Amino acid sequence: VGQVGDGSRSARRPTMTDVAAHAGVSLKTVSRVVNGEPHVSPDLAERVRASIHALGFRRDASARQLAMGAAGRLLGYIQVDAANPFFGAVARGLEEVTLPHGFLVITGSTDADPEREGVLLDALVEARVAGIVVAAAEGGDEILRQELDHGTAIVCVDRLLDGATCDVVTSTNRASTRTAVQHLLDLGHRRIAYLGGTPTVWSAQERRQGYLDALTAAGIGADPGLLIEHVDTSTLAAAATTRLLEHDAPPTAIVAGQDRIGIGLIEALHRHAAQHEVAHIVFDDLPLGGQLEPPVAVVRQDATELGRAAGRLLLQRLDDGTTAPARRIEIPAAFEPRRSASIPPPAIDEPDRSP
Amino acid sequence: VGQVGDGSRSARRPTMTDVAAHAGVSLKTVSRVVNGEPHVSPDLAERVRASIHALGFRRDASARQLAMGAAGRLLGYIQVDAANPFFGAVARGLEEVTLPHGFLVITGSTDADPEREGVLLDALVEARVAGIVVAAAEGGDEILRQELDHGTAIVCVDRLLDGATCDVVTSTNRASTRTAVQHLLDLGHRRIAYLGGTPTVWSAQERRQGYLDALTAAGIGADPGLLIEHVDTSTLAAAATTRLLEHDAPPTAIVAGQDRIGIGLIEALHRHAAQHEVAHIVFDDLPLGGQLEPPVAVVRQDATELGRAAGRLLLQRLDDGTTAPARRIEIPAAFEPRRSASIPPPAIDEPDRSP
Repeated sequence: VGQVGDGSRSARRPTMTDVAAHAGVSLKTVSRVVNGEPHVSPDLAERVRASIHALGFRRDASARQLAMGAAGRLLGYIQVDAANPFFGAVARGLEEVTLPHGFLVITGSTDADPEREGVLLDALVEARVAGIVVAAAEGGDEILRQELDHGTAIVCVDRLLDGATCDVVTSTNRASTRTAVQHLLDLGHRRIAYLGGTPTVWSAQERRQGYLDALTAAGIGADPGLLIEHVDTSTLAAAATTRLLEHDAPPTAIVAGQDRIGIGLIEALHRHAAQHEVAHIVFDDLPLGGQLEPPVAVVRQDATELGRAAGRLLLQRLDDGTTAPARRIEIPAAFEPRRSASIPPPAIDEPDRSP
Repeated sequence: VGQVGDGSRSARRPTMTDVAAHAGVSLKTVSRVVNGEPHVSPDLAERVRASIHALGFRRDASARQLAMGAAGRLLGYIQVDAANPFFGAVARGLEEVTLPHGFLVITGSTDADPEREGVLLDALVEARVAGIVVAAAEGGDEILRQELDHGTAIVCVDRLLDGATCDVVTSTNRASTRTAVQHLLDLGHRRIAYLGGTPTVWSAQERRQGYLDALTAAGIGADPGLLIEHVDTSTLAAAATTRLLEHDAPPTAIVAGQDRIGIGLIEALHRHAAQHEVAHIVFDDLPLGGQLEPPVAVVRQDATELGRAAGRLLLQRLDDGTTAPARRIEIPAAFEPRRSASIPPPAIDEPDRSP
């Protein structure tokens, strides 16, 4: 097996001592050149560099880290799905804030599987990360609680950790969803459907609750036929939309609980040529959503800012230690009422009196 | 500093010996229960589990890995930008193929910075990954070549490694771009602009070359005013599109070299109400591209399949060892000629004879 990280690796590699011998200089001189320190004559430095090149010498990670001081330290980021742009944008925000402090972020996907979360958590600990940002897998909370108990610096992003006090950054999921649904109610919509994700995920729960809050405040009972959950993929969401449109009493407006659900919703509305008939709003920004016809109203979650805030909390936690009180930050998710949210409900017909 | 991976961590954690003492059983019995081995009476197993729970015992990573055998091993994936859906989809394909073999993937972003690539490479080696899939940073090739020389199993994805033999998986960048441009030429377009990314990136070079191949085959010299590069973001691409549209002799068709460039192109075309006038094609699929008006023709790169193929090559490489010949796989990128590619060039006017 060709591999990395076995014990023989360092033996195969040339060392600074080899470089010193090859160049005919002291080890200290090699060290100075390698670490970019002053007090080496240009002539000597050139000889050392030539030997480094000839031998293929490279500092190993620990030497590099010692030399760089803060640089080269690691943070872990446990996400649900690397292919989901939301989690990718969080990763970018996290990197943006922590890189200037010398941290690199290593990450892995759990697919919301607690077993994978556990293995990743172990792997990150083995890789000597200084702290971990995690979008907790459903049911995986026990593992995280144990890590917290053992003094690991952990910041939760997008989701809370049940029964544990932990720094956490989320969007204003509930309030922003309520605002979006309120906009539809103000236009006169009464049959508003909601397409949601896995309801055990905290952020999905919150958004559903925001939808229900708005209905309740308007004195409208939730119609179980209009609250559809577990449609996390665009394919499932498109199928659910088709069923809603073929319903005896179809909704006059549909809200999608996240971007992939929104993509399925819009695909199905277009397929049924219903995009100008049924008002629709998507939680999460969609690339080119403003160029669709009608332009799609969105609740713009600032995933990059969620990542930045998580990074700042983690840096703070590393400074303060794990016994300082936990902090909670909510990042506003802004409702952008483009034209798809301004489609009015159909005029109410007189009751049908035909026999 | 609250941290993980310091020497004191194992001391704070309860060990199997602690569990054995608490339960009043032998260490071997605890080990059997922890590793799910047979030959433990239900009664004893229950006592051990109660003690595990009471003490908060958890196997550490190395014990877990020993117990799980193949499971829990790590692969590294060095990508350019975790927030770019292309690299996220590659990560998913990689995970899909390697997870059934017991591997988890840890990853980090280089932002095409060779220094970050080097630090990540070191970090992955420290984390004892069995092999690495990498989308090489520009200029970072020297570091990778050294790792290859040191016997690290490396598979390149999306980009070749200059001057090194290494397993590599790419899309059919050049041929597929040529096909797309050929489609425009067949419709009579002669002024076809190309918006490309950083030309030192191998895949960007290949796509540009495919554009030039098609023009050359049609006997059309490349107009330097229509070949625009270094517009890697949607903002830059939108600005470049605006400049093209305001050109004295604007192009009648525009090809975008990747998805973000495509988003900027489409935003600008819509802003100038030119989306029905100027034919356009985007390399990379766009979510909801088929729902835009006109639907956007794309060259659909199968990023997930690139990741799968890279995973298969890496597994094979780990079996074969690093001295076996390098393999190269090309994954077809399919041209999907939606309506935006069928916009004809304007009818040729008689030469203007006014004074």
